[in-house]
Amino acid sequence: MAYETLKIQQDLVEWLSLTGDQLRRHLHSPLEVTTKSGRNDLVTNLDKQTEQFYVQQIRQHYPEAHICGEEGFGDQLTDLTGLVFFVDPIDGTMNFVRQKNNFATMIGVYLDGQPLVGAILDVIGEKLLVGGAETGVQLNGYPLTPIAPAPIAEGLLGVNAMMYAHNGYHLQDLAAQTSGVRVTGSAGLEFIQVITGQQNGYVSSLSPWDVAAGWAIGQGVGIEAHNLAGQQPQLREREVIIAGIPEIWRSFQKLQN
Amino acid sequence: MAYETLKIQQDLVEWLSLTGDQLRRHLHSPLEVTTKSGRNDLVTNLDKQTEQFYVQQIRQHYPEAHICGEEGFGDQLTDLTGLVFFVDPIDGTMNFVRQKNNFATMIGVYLDGQPLVGAILDVIGEKLLVGGAETGVQLNGYPLTPIAPAPIAEGLLGVNAMMYAHNGYHLQDLAAQTSGVRVTGSAGLEFIQVITGQQNGYVSSLSPWDVAAGWAIGQGVGIEAHNLAGQQPQLREREVIIAGIPEIWRSFQKLQN
Repeated sequence: MAYETLKIQQDLVEWLSLTGDQLRRHLHSPLEVTTKSGRNDLVTNLDKQTEQFYVQQIRQHYPEAHICGEEGFGDQLTDLTGLVFFVDPIDGTMNFVRQKNNFATMIGVYLDGQPLVGAILDVIGEKLLVGGAETGVQLNGYPLTPIAPAPIAEGLLGVNAMMYAHNGYHLQDLAAQTSGVRVTGSAGLEFIQVITGQQNGYVSSLSPWDVAAGWAIGQGVGIEAHNLAGQQPQLREREVIIAGIPEIWRSFQKLQN
Repeated sequence: MAYETLKIQQDLVEWLSLTGDQLRRHLHSPLEVTTKSGRNDLVTNLDKQTEQFYVQQIRQHYPEAHICGEEGFGDQLTDLTGLVFFVDPIDGTMNFVRQKNNFATMIGVYLDGQPLVGAILDVIGEKLLVGGAETGVQLNGYPLTPIAPAPIAEGLLGVNAMMYAHNGYHLQDLAAQTSGVRVTGSAGLEFIQVITGQQNGYVSSLSPWDVAAGWAIGQGVGIEAHNLAGQQPQLREREVIIAGIPEIWRSFQKLQN
């Protein structure tokens, strides 16, 4: 390996832990909330400050890396060559603002477009999930074993509410084959559920920073991620992602014909 | 009052706390899981044992009371006269089985069909919500202030996934007026969200033991509950319940014409 994956992973753990402390400390401070693409697409001063902190750390420790960040403090990527950090400072900003709960902070690291390592912190639940294919996966320091796939009838499915409402990509039909659906409002928390075996899958329309950490970590326990074309996530723009145990993708695919 | 509400509340706190300890202790013990009305309607040995514990406590401390319990260890109620305990030993049994998280245990207490006091314990999150109109509401011992209603555009809505999927009662249209929907799979956790101000409302088809605790506690902070006819919950059989800040009910009602 050109990069020491374990060193990167340790840095992610340190940065996310510091961020978690900050966010919990400022949880009830007055927030500056503004909208982005629409009235339910929120950003706060803490999203911006957190991304700036991550960008600063990455620039200092990995000056050759590129950064793709939700709030735009990273680079304009032209391709995925080399080391790329995908940064989501607060994932589930709506939950952060309305619930003060059920949000995550996360970073996924890729080398030439292939997953290297990722980390997701459930900030209020204080669950730190970290790892990848090479380093294995740990939850709060405890190693996770590879997922033992259950029939999809015996597991829950995380879904995007709008896609589910309109039966987009036959998502209601897929859901009917499972134990039921859940909607959390945070891609990071959905990936934690999938990677720790609490859900069999997650289907949503996701930006690169929504999928990068979860997909990288998922590699370490046998969780797959596909786009609609059956490719691995392209990490260039928002696309529909089907993540989960292999049976979720097979069942999804059958329904598309 | 014919009954000492505060004494009942203290008993609820004690029984739920003991149950929480038990359920956490046995969280990873082998479960006996069987189905009830369908393949996604589960019951476990711990649901049954917990209800038996509650029934035993109620019989001992309130021998004149009647009991309506999800698992059938209570009474066959012919009416709601006198003191009635509505018992849901494990609310969100699917989550309990699949996720080992996101489930509750709860009891609501009524006098002549009117809410007296209730208690809901988020077992893994260790959030104990207790109270009613007379005693006020406490979360882990800290008093909650009455909900300051926000516009429904600025709050989340908890929904029943199937009702939402089919736009039953224009639920998708109601959802479109809010900050978005969430699906947790536990009525008890939904009521905790609503009563602590993390969601503006919750709409689902609920059995008496699903709604009794939340409605009773909600009275203490200005949370309302209606059935489709605009009446208070009848607590006799499963019915659609619209719970939340007053604006949720008004907006729901407008959409039904």
